[in-house]
Amino acid sequence: MNISYRIECLRREMAQENIDIYIVPSADYHGSEYVGEYFKTREYLTGFTGSAGTAVFTMDRAGLWTDGRYFIQAEEQLNGTEIQLFRMGEPDVDTVESFLEKELPEGGVIGFDGRAAELSAGDKYRRIAEKKGGCIQASFDLADRFWKDRPALPAGKIWLLDESYAGESVSAKLSRVREKMNFYGADVHLLSSLDDISWLFNIRGNDVAYCPVVLAFAIIEEDSARIFTDEKKIPAEILKMLQKNNVAVRSYESVYAAVENLAGHRVLLDPERTSYSLYYSIPDTAEVIKAQNPSILMKCIKNETEIENIRRAHLRDGIAHTRFLCWLKKNIGKIPITEISAARKLEEFRAQQEGFLGPSFSPISAAGKHGAIVHYSASEESDEELKEGTLYLSDTGGHYLEGSTDITRTVALGVIPEEQKKHFTIVARAMLRLAAAVFLYGSSGVTLDALAREVFWKERLNFNHGTGHGVGYLLNIHEPPINFRWREGMCPSQVFEENMIITDEPGIYIEGSHGIRLENELLVQKDVKNEYGQFMHFEILTFVPIDLDALLPEYMSEEEKHLLNNYHQNVYEKISPYLNEEEKAWLRSAARPI
Amino acid sequence: MNISYRIECLRREMAQENIDIYIVPSADYHGSEYVGEYFKTREYLTGFTGSAGTAVFTMDRAGLWTDGRYFIQAEEQLNGTEIQLFRMGEPDVDTVESFLEKELPEGGVIGFDGRAAELSAGDKYRRIAEKKGGCIQASFDLADRFWKDRPALPAGKIWLLDESYAGESVSAKLSRVREKMNFYGADVHLLSSLDDISWLFNIRGNDVAYCPVVLAFAIIEEDSARIFTDEKKIPAEILKMLQKNNVAVRSYESVYAAVENLAGHRVLLDPERTSYSLYYSIPDTAEVIKAQNPSILMKCIKNETEIENIRRAHLRDGIAHTRFLCWLKKNIGKIPITEISAARKLEEFRAQQEGFLGPSFSPISAAGKHGAIVHYSASEESDEELKEGTLYLSDTGGHYLEGSTDITRTVALGVIPEEQKKHFTIVARAMLRLAAAVFLYGSSGVTLDALAREVFWKERLNFNHGTGHGVGYLLNIHEPPINFRWREGMCPSQVFEENMIITDEPGIYIEGSHGIRLENELLVQKDVKNEYGQFMHFEILTFVPIDLDALLPEYMSEEEKHLLNNYHQNVYEKISPYLNEEEKAWLRSAARPI
Repeated sequence: MNISYRIECLRREMAQENIDIYIVPSADYHGSEYVGEYFKTREYLTGFTGSAGTAVFTMDRAGLWTDGRYFIQAEEQLNGTEIQLFRMGEPDVDTVESFLEKELPEGGVIGFDGRAAELSAGDKYRRIAEKKGGCIQASFDLADRFWKDRPALPAGKIWLLDESYAGESVSAKLSRVREKMNFYGADVHLLSSLDDISWLFNIRGNDVAYCPVVLAFAIIEEDSARIFTDEKKIPAEILKMLQKNNVAVRSYESVYAAVENLAGHRVLLDPERTSYSLYYSIPDTAEVIKAQNPSILMKCIKNETEIENIRRAHLRDGIAHTRFLCWLKKNIGKIPITEISAARKLEEFRAQQEGFLGPSFSPISAAGKHGAIVHYSASEESDEELKEGTLYLSDTGGHYLEGSTDITRTVALGVIPEEQKKHFTIVARAMLRLAAAVFLYGSSGVTLDALAREVFWKERLNFNHGTGHGVGYLLNIHEPPINFRWREGMCPSQVFEENMIITDEPGIYIEGSHGIRLENELLVQKDVKNEYGQFMHFEILTFVPIDLDALLPEYMSEEEKHLLNNYHQNVYEKISPYLNEEEKAWLRSAARPI
Repeated sequence: MNISYRIECLRREMAQENIDIYIVPSADYHGSEYVGEYFKTREYLTGFTGSAGTAVFTMDRAGLWTDGRYFIQAEEQLNGTEIQLFRMGEPDVDTVESFLEKELPEGGVIGFDGRAAELSAGDKYRRIAEKKGGCIQASFDLADRFWKDRPALPAGKIWLLDESYAGESVSAKLSRVREKMNFYGADVHLLSSLDDISWLFNIRGNDVAYCPVVLAFAIIEEDSARIFTDEKKIPAEILKMLQKNNVAVRSYESVYAAVENLAGHRVLLDPERTSYSLYYSIPDTAEVIKAQNPSILMKCIKNETEIENIRRAHLRDGIAHTRFLCWLKKNIGKIPITEISAARKLEEFRAQQEGFLGPSFSPISAAGKHGAIVHYSASEESDEELKEGTLYLSDTGGHYLEGSTDITRTVALGVIPEEQKKHFTIVARAMLRLAAAVFLYGSSGVTLDALAREVFWKERLNFNHGTGHGVGYLLNIHEPPINFRWREGMCPSQVFEENMIITDEPGIYIEGSHGIRLENELLVQKDVKNEYGQFMHFEILTFVPIDLDALLPEYMSEEEKHLLNNYHQNVYEKISPYLNEEEKAWLRSAARPI
C-alpha cells in the first residue's frame, strides 16, 4: 500500500479539475456507519481503517479527523505518511471547518463527492467556500479515476426475513410509515438509510460486511413505493411479495433521475440521512419536509416477536460465550492462544448454536496493552499471544435469525496486577449500577449516564466513548436514535420507550498498559405506574459471567455486590442447563456469590 | 375578596372591547418570576397567590394553569370560585394553547396586555387567533379599569451596591457587555430583565418584595447607555456615578418611544426576556439579533469578591439558623410555637447578624401536613401550631450585603413515625450524594440530576420540582441559567462553570401527611485536570446540621454516612465558635458522627 503515491495521484486530479481542497468522508451514499468495500475511499487514500474519520487534502497538506475511539489506532496507521492526525473534541484542535477556513485560498474551490457527503457537511463546505469568494465542486469521485483494483459494488443475494422473525408484515410497516407521512403532510417519502429500507421491506442482504442490510434507496408514495437496487439480486419470492405490496424495483443509479422528477410533491426526508447530491436533485418546485425518518423510532422499538427472539439469541450467545471463557481459562498457559485464534475459537462456539449467521461486527480481540485501543482490530502483523498476568478484552457479537448480539468481556489471564483489578472493579461497578437504574418515563440516555460515569469520575477517570448505543435486529449493531452520553447535544436525545434495546459498556483504557470494557445489553421495560408517573427499568439480556479473578470485592458497596451476585445467579440458572459437566462445574465457581 | 364580581367586571370590559378570550399571565413588564404588587393582576382576578400561573377567561369559562409546586395550594385558593385548575405537565390536561384552540370561536379575538406577555406566548396566541381567522388585541390592561385600589408603582429609593460587595465596576461590566454586543454585531442592546439591569449598574431597589431589584429598562449603546426608571428614586451619588459612565436616566414609560426610534440599528435582545409589546415597538428597519442577555452568564459566574462575601454570608446565616434549630428543639412542647411565630423567630436570629437586610424570599414555614404544599405560605387563617410527633419544614433565606442565602431544613419535633424517618433518610441521602458529585467540565444540571433522583426512583418516589436553581447575589433568589433537572429541554442546559452557585434541594411530599425538603447551596469549583479533562466538584456553602432525630442510619451506605459525618464535622468547626455554651453543647450532639 503506497499512500504517498495515491495522494500524488489525487493531487494530480485535483489540479486537473482546479480543486484546491478535496474532502473524503468515510461514507457511502447512504450515511452508513460501516460501508461496503466499494466505498472505502478514505481508507484507500490514508491507510486508516477505522469506521469514522474524514480526510482532507490540499496541494501540500493532508489531514485526518477522527474521534477518541480511534486516536491510538489512527496514530499508528498514519505513521510514515504525510497525513496529520486531528484529534476531534480535544481543545485547540482545528475542526475540518476551521482547517478549511484557514487553508482555502481566496476564490478557491472545495471538492468532494456529493453522493458520499452528508447534506449538512456539504452545506457547511459551500458556505466556507462562498465566504472566500470561491465555490464547491461536488460532482467528482476523484479517487475512482486512479483506483485500479477498486472492489465492485456488491452483488450478493437479497433474502427475506420471515415474519416469524420480523414480527410485522411489510404492508403493516408501510401503512405505519404512510400514517407518519400523512401527519407531516407529505405525499412522498425519500429514504436513503440502508437499515431503514431493510427493516421496512423485511429484506436483508450481504452488501456491507457484518451489516446484513441491502444497498438501496426507496421512494414511498401514498399507494405505491419504489426500491432502487440491483434487480438481479432479488429472488422471485421477494419480487412477488413486493409486487403484492405495490412496490416496484428500479435500478440503483436511477434514484437521482427519479428524485429529479418529484416536482410539485411534498417530500418527507431526513436531512441527516440524505446525501448532498440526492438532496439537491430535488426540484425547486417540490416542498421538502425535514424530519427524522419515521422508521427510525419504529425500528428501535422492538415488537413482541422480535423481543422473544432476541431473548433466545442472547441465551444461545451466552452459552457460546460462557463455553469460550471456560475453554480460555482452562487452556491459557497450556496451549498457544493469540488474539486471532481466540476470536476464531469464540466464533466456533457461536457457530455451534442454532440460527447463527455470522459475527455482527468485526471482532475486537485484544491482549494486554492492545485492550487500550478502543476499536482495536488484530491483524496478522499485530496478532499478539495471550499471556498470563495480563488482561484479555473481547468485544464481539453474533447475528442470529433471532437477532443480533453485542457483548464485551475482559478477563484476567492468570494473576494480574492489583492496579488492573482496581480498574476492573470500577468498570464492573459502573456497568452494574447503570443496568440497575429505575427511572421515570421521559428519561433519556443523558439523564442516566452519570449513574455509570460517577463511579469513574469519583476516581478522576473517564472513558472517551459513549456508555451505550441502540442495537439493531439483524441490521446495524449501532442503531440510532438512543444512546447513553453525559453531555447534552444541540437537540434533546431520544426518550427511552418500552422495548428499546441499548448496550451498557463502560471502560478504562490505559495507553501502553491495559484496557477494560464490560458490556451487557439492556431491554427497556415498564415498571410500576403510580402518582409520580410511569417508572421504567432495564432487563439485562446478556448472560455471561463477569470475571471474579479480576475483581476486588472490598472496593464494592453492599448494593453493588448484591447486584453482581444476583446477575451471576441468573447467569448460572439460564446457562448451566446447556453446558457439559466440566463447563457446568467451572460456571458454578465462576458465578459464585461474593 | 369577591372573585366572581371581579370576573364579572372583566367580562363586561371584554364584551366592550369585543374580546372573546382574555389571558392574564403572572408577569410584570420584565418577565420577572416575582412581581411587584402593582403587577399582581392574576392574583387580583383569581385569588391564587403562587408565583407562577396563567389565568384565562372566556365569557363563560375561567381557567388557571400552574405547575406541580402549586397544585395543592391552587386547588385550595380556587375553591369556591368558578375557576378551573389545569395541572400543567400532567397527562391529558389541556395546555393554555390547546384550550384557546378549542374555545376561540371562528373570527374571535384573544386579548392580553402585551406589556406583560412573553414574546413567544404572544406570538403563539396570535397564530392561534389567525388560524381561526381572528386576531389579537394586546393594547389593553382590562383589569386596570375596575381595579380601584390597585397599588401604585413602587417609589422606594434606589441604592448603590458598593464595589467592595459587587466586586466589579459598572464601567468594567459595561465594557464586557459591549464586547459581547460587538461579537453579535449589535450596536444597541435592549435590556428588560430587572436583575440584569441591577447587576450591570451595581444598583439595588425596593420595587419587588424580597427581590432587591430596580424596576427599569435599559438601552446600551456603543458609547452610552440609558436607564428607564423613575428618576426621583435615584440618589445624587448614583446619578453622578451613572453620568461618569455616560449613562442617562429617562422616565420608565418612555422606553416604548425610545425603542420606536431604533430604526436602522442592529438590536441585541433576549427574546425570552423581552415583552410582546416592547418587541413589536422595534421598527421594521432595525435588525433584531436574538440571543441570551450577555449579562445572564456573567452574573451567574460570581467574582472572587462576591464569593468571599457569600462564604461570609453563609457563615452568618448558618450561625443564625443553627441557633434557631437549637431554640426550636429546646422549646417545642414547652411554649406555643406556630408556623408564623417560628418563621419570625428565625428572622430574629438572622437580624442579629451583621449585614442582614431582610428575608430573601417569602419564608415557607410549614408544620406537619402543610410541608407537603411545596410553596406553602402560612397566613393568619392557616397558621398551625408546631406539634411534637410531626415534621416541621422551613425554607427560608436572607439577603445580606454579602449575598443572599436559600436554605431548607426539615426537623423532627419529638418522635416522628418510622415512615417519615424513612422518607427523611431518602431526602438526606439524595442531597448528600449530589453535593459530593465529581464531574467533567461540560456537565450540566441534566448530567448530574440522576445522582440525587436515583435514590428516590429506586423507591418508586419522585418530587415534582427541580433539584436545584442558581442563586442571585442580592438579586433574584432563583437565578438563571443553571438548574438541576432530569429531563432534557429543547435547548441544552447551561454547562457548569467555576464559581457558579446552585441549590441542592430534593424533597418528598405526601399530601395530607408530611413534606420533607433539605436544601444546601453549592459552589462550583475546579478539581484536578488530567488526561481525561478538567474535573469539577461542589463546595458546600451552607452550614446547618441535618436533623439526626429524623434519620435512620441503617438505610444509608457507608459512603453516605461518611459524607454526612464529614459535613457535620465542618458544620461544628465553622459554627460552634460563634455559639454560647448551651448552643455549642447542643450542636456537638446534633452534629455527632453516626
